[in-house]
Amino acid sequence: MAKAYALGLDFGTNSARALIVDPANGREVATAVANYPSGRAGIILDPKDPNLARQKPDDWLAAMTKCTQAALKLAARVKGFKPQQIVGIGVDTTASTPLPVDRQGGPLCRQKRFARNASALAWLWKDHTSFAEAAEITEAARKKHPEYLAKCGGTYSSEWFWSKALRCIRAAPEVMAAAAAWVEQSDFIPAVLTGNSDPKTWKRNICAAGHKAMYHAKWTLPDAEFLAAIDPRLGEVRRNKTYERAWASDQKAGDLCPAWAGKLALRAGTPVAVGAIDAHLGAVGAGVRPGSLAKILGTSSCDMMIHPNTQSLADIPGLCGIVDGSIVPGYFGLEAGQSAVGDIFNWFVNSFDRGDKAHVTLAAEAARFKPGQSGLLALDWNNGNRCLLVDPRLTGLLIGQTLHTTRAEVYRALIEGSAMGARIIMERLEEYGVPVREVITCGGIAEKSPLVMQIYADVTGRPMKLSRSAQTCAMGAAIYGAVVAGARAGGYDSVEAAQAKMTGLKPKTYQPDPGRHQVYNALFKLYRQLHDAFGTTGYRESLHNVMKDLLALRDQVRGIGK
Amino acid sequence: MAKAYALGLDFGTNSARALIVDPANGREVATAVANYPSGRAGIILDPKDPNLARQKPDDWLAAMTKCTQAALKLAARVKGFKPQQIVGIGVDTTASTPLPVDRQGGPLCRQKRFARNASALAWLWKDHTSFAEAAEITEAARKKHPEYLAKCGGTYSSEWFWSKALRCIRAAPEVMAAAAAWVEQSDFIPAVLTGNSDPKTWKRNICAAGHKAMYHAKWTLPDAEFLAAIDPRLGEVRRNKTYERAWASDQKAGDLCPAWAGKLALRAGTPVAVGAIDAHLGAVGAGVRPGSLAKILGTSSCDMMIHPNTQSLADIPGLCGIVDGSIVPGYFGLEAGQSAVGDIFNWFVNSFDRGDKAHVTLAAEAARFKPGQSGLLALDWNNGNRCLLVDPRLTGLLIGQTLHTTRAEVYRALIEGSAMGARIIMERLEEYGVPVREVITCGGIAEKSPLVMQIYADVTGRPMKLSRSAQTCAMGAAIYGAVVAGARAGGYDSVEAAQAKMTGLKPKTYQPDPGRHQVYNALFKLYRQLHDAFGTTGYRESLHNVMKDLLALRDQVRGIGK
Repeated sequence: MAKAYALGLDFGTNSARALIVDPANGREVATAVANYPSGRAGIILDPKDPNLARQKPDDWLAAMTKCTQAALKLAARVKGFKPQQIVGIGVDTTASTPLPVDRQGGPLCRQKRFARNASALAWLWKDHTSFAEAAEITEAARKKHPEYLAKCGGTYSSEWFWSKALRCIRAAPEVMAAAAAWVEQSDFIPAVLTGNSDPKTWKRNICAAGHKAMYHAKWTLPDAEFLAAIDPRLGEVRRNKTYERAWASDQKAGDLCPAWAGKLALRAGTPVAVGAIDAHLGAVGAGVRPGSLAKILGTSSCDMMIHPNTQSLADIPGLCGIVDGSIVPGYFGLEAGQSAVGDIFNWFVNSFDRGDKAHVTLAAEAARFKPGQSGLLALDWNNGNRCLLVDPRLTGLLIGQTLHTTRAEVYRALIEGSAMGARIIMERLEEYGVPVREVITCGGIAEKSPLVMQIYADVTGRPMKLSRSAQTCAMGAAIYGAVVAGARAGGYDSVEAAQAKMTGLKPKTYQPDPGRHQVYNALFKLYRQLHDAFGTTGYRESLHNVMKDLLALRDQVRGIGK
Repeated sequence: MAKAYALGLDFGTNSARALIVDPANGREVATAVANYPSGRAGIILDPKDPNLARQKPDDWLAAMTKCTQAALKLAARVKGFKPQQIVGIGVDTTASTPLPVDRQGGPLCRQKRFARNASALAWLWKDHTSFAEAAEITEAARKKHPEYLAKCGGTYSSEWFWSKALRCIRAAPEVMAAAAAWVEQSDFIPAVLTGNSDPKTWKRNICAAGHKAMYHAKWTLPDAEFLAAIDPRLGEVRRNKTYERAWASDQKAGDLCPAWAGKLALRAGTPVAVGAIDAHLGAVGAGVRPGSLAKILGTSSCDMMIHPNTQSLADIPGLCGIVDGSIVPGYFGLEAGQSAVGDIFNWFVNSFDRGDKAHVTLAAEAARFKPGQSGLLALDWNNGNRCLLVDPRLTGLLIGQTLHTTRAEVYRALIEGSAMGARIIMERLEEYGVPVREVITCGGIAEKSPLVMQIYADVTGRPMKLSRSAQTCAMGAAIYGAVVAGARAGGYDSVEAAQAKMTGLKPKTYQPDPGRHQVYNALFKLYRQLHDAFGTTGYRESLHNVMKDLLALRDQVRGIGK
């Protein structure tokens, strides 16, 4: 059989990445990144509205062309490599990042009449202009269709598909009226690559549909009447601009069209997989399997698991989503995560420390402290709480400061708080029958922050394994590229088979220290008290113990009064 | 009548100050400071025990000599001034700072056999080695004599007289056995100046006795049997090394002895007042009168009031002390305060900012924020809570951080938290029938921090007046010097008469802004929730509102969502 390669195309918030992988062993043959050219780091902002964040779809295409060409150029150095050996393409993007398109599938923002209309752009995942609409949809669903919310954490987010559609209807009715379809970026890119100019026939992906648009096999998208009761025009979007069925990424969206084959210098007819959300394919690229929690640790965290869809699975309160087939076909995809991880550490260093090397300096100092020694405890909610409280209007908390508290102690407390937030999620999963037998981490923090990783291991009492690939999202996309290519073409016939060869672990694992874990168990009990007191409505216990217990633990760890 | 002057001698933690005042108008003719020569800034420390803080009594005498001579030298520039015109001397010191003395009143540490024994030194107010003994005394008093604690906040402190005596008995029984008396610094200094070599006859001051040793006119010092039940040797101290009666500072301790008259170049026979605690005389020097709260704002705060002893006064839970005659004879002296004020701001700047000018820079930036704008709220307990919770084992808390929170916002939140702690005390006083009709501030922060003063005014809704004198403790001592001199010698026959002429206000008053005060009322409600939840045992309400209310207030102040 001829040598084969798979291409993963990963569309992030600020840039696109192309990764060429050898499916036989997961070797990363070449990779390249290209930034989106417009706006501020690829994001169109509005100085008057801090909630607004949009993108130009053509930026995605320009960056895709550039990074694919660059990756191919790098791959050309590999002996015998030819672009024609790429047998399958997978795609992941941010979500929910929907955009309005015309009858031919072209972004509306390309039309001259909408050139200055921000509503005709793509609505980036982090656009929060629809916060009021999200609350409206949540309230309506709670009353009439609680089952819609049960699979997505109990609260419909302003980051998601319907909130943005409703906001677009209200902010720019002429835009939505002119749209033939309202589509996710993860559906738009495969449609472009396959040259499909009829959005009615685009294969929408189950990942974004299930996690962001309340799609479920039982009822497909939410009921048109339900949506029409919120706003008649939203019912109309449901009826005429969306879809009735969603697909998993082991399905082909189509074949690479001659036009894009020419632009990218690839073989026309190469199969292109149905798209998916970046984090979900990141889990695939990290080697997620039943019992393993794939943890993408960057500015925020995404915690992904899969669970056989042949087994029953309860609704798990507080999870971002449970969607059949969203990560690996045949499995429920479970999504959880923390709204801010690295963002909190960066905030602290940028606001309360000096210079670029501060992470390194602070980490070196913070590493010398024993757990409990500072008497500090932090809630990691500076950017709200995504799981399990699903509440963007929560904030940070730091407790236990004395006149001797140092910057490095606070830095460490913030890391510990983050690890405790991670532990809360793990315990919730296990409580609802999803055992966490291993944790595989990836992302910037997993690669670069030994202190954070060790504290995560010590707080959770679990080894922190590291994904072999440092770009798991693109790797996951490449895996789906290999799957749609199929075994006969040098790919695979199942995701599991592809993962078995294409994913792996780094030799380094962060092992929990039993002594430190024991102290963290005591701290975690206090963390949970604060978590429940400030994050839930039902907590009615005294908090008078918290400061005292922290001091007692501190004195015990320091050996004071012995 | 010949021109007369009064001398105030103020013994602080690190230095002594002499202040020569014209009693006719309060004019500060000359002042000088001398540092204590030994240890670290005058404090003998133990690298092995961070709780230990002692002083050498001879340091006090050396510094007193030096600063008095320096002040006299400066005063000599005033036309017609002669040292013989000083008609009365008043003394204030830190407290509780007790020391063991021999039969002739000499400090035991002067004896060769105790030269290396830290227990023979003076036990500085901030020595906390007796924390276990304090708890023991508190427990015993709660069971057998709750009335002992009712006048001093409900908890006997490790900073105080009996805790330190008990600790001395246990740590160095040979020292206490050798002591003829266990005396406060504020009794020791006047005894030295008056050349009284029989400690049995020293006039002990009501201020330290009442506020630090549970002395009360009804029962004098605590019962010997009660103390003996804690430790028989403590009963023995009570019986043989203390006193049966305490005196107010309008009484003469005696007349300046020839030896010290010679050393200080003053007239022998000059009357020396009974001593008192620095903060209490600070209130006198600030012009305290019924209805006025004298607030000394420095590293910590002391809040002092007086209340006619002809009127009934309830025990006020959480106050540091209520002692008849401790500030002005004929009035109950009420003492409250916060364990850390400037200390918290300094801690923040030193730990989280850069360089010496940071207070100025941060204050300038923080002054631009509107109340509520940051969404932050802080508890000011980094050094525990002295009033009203009387709990050294409480710690700081900061709530409301986002990824956008700045250093200046936190700085302002710490100031606001401090002001709310001040407001809690004022409201408690009023609740128990002591109206606060004016607030007169003094101390380093009152002099130097307009931002802090304005926030205090806005949070409490009360004008913050400024004492005319910048050294109110020494001024209070000088006032008592004038009082023991008497009107016939150019002084006064009552404290009130002396205060009327010798104290006053600066022209500047910080007026509360009604709009800002209104926002702070909303914040104060949340502060009180946190205060009660973490500081008391009885709080059982939900705290789920706190972060949300802070954000709602923030958005309202910022005009978001309007």
